[in-house]
Amino acid sequence: MLVRPKGGILDPQGEAVERSLRRLGFPVGEARVGRVIDLEVDAESAEEARAQVERMCERLLANPLIESYEIALPGNRP
Amino acid sequence: MLVRPKGGILDPQGEAVERSLRRLGFPVGEARVGRVIDLEVDAESAEEARAQVERMCERLLANPLIESYEIALPGNRP
Repeated sequence: MLVRPKGGILDPQGEAVERSLRRLGFPVGEARVGRVIDLEVDAESAEEARAQVERMCERLLANPLIESYEIALPGNRP
Repeated sequence: MLVRPKGGILDPQGEAVERSLRRLGFPVGEARVGRVIDLEVDAESAEEARAQVERMCERLLANPLIESYEIALPGNRP
């Protein structure tokens, strides 16, 4: 799954990436940094797998106040 | 782009995620944690954008010894 800082939320990692790339001569616009988490789950169906991962995001993997998440299952894995 | 630890490379963040999820009662298999970096670049074509981002990955955004990267352009953005 992908976990990204929500729009409008301060992203110091993204700002550091922007500054470093510009210093190296790359004229980039905005950069935002999040996490990609690849996870093996045991499920009977794609729907069940998605529901399990949603619960994991809500309980541990994403902070819903400041982050949004996106789940991709094998076949449409990012 | 997505930057992930290469297979076989130790991933302490992934191990921490595995342990925490199991402690919460989720019977997960392996977890691996990497970064997703969303970046605005100014390019004339998709090919030029991809080439620019490849140079950024090689110079700053990924450590080729221990990480692999994957570039997605808008339209096939993960």
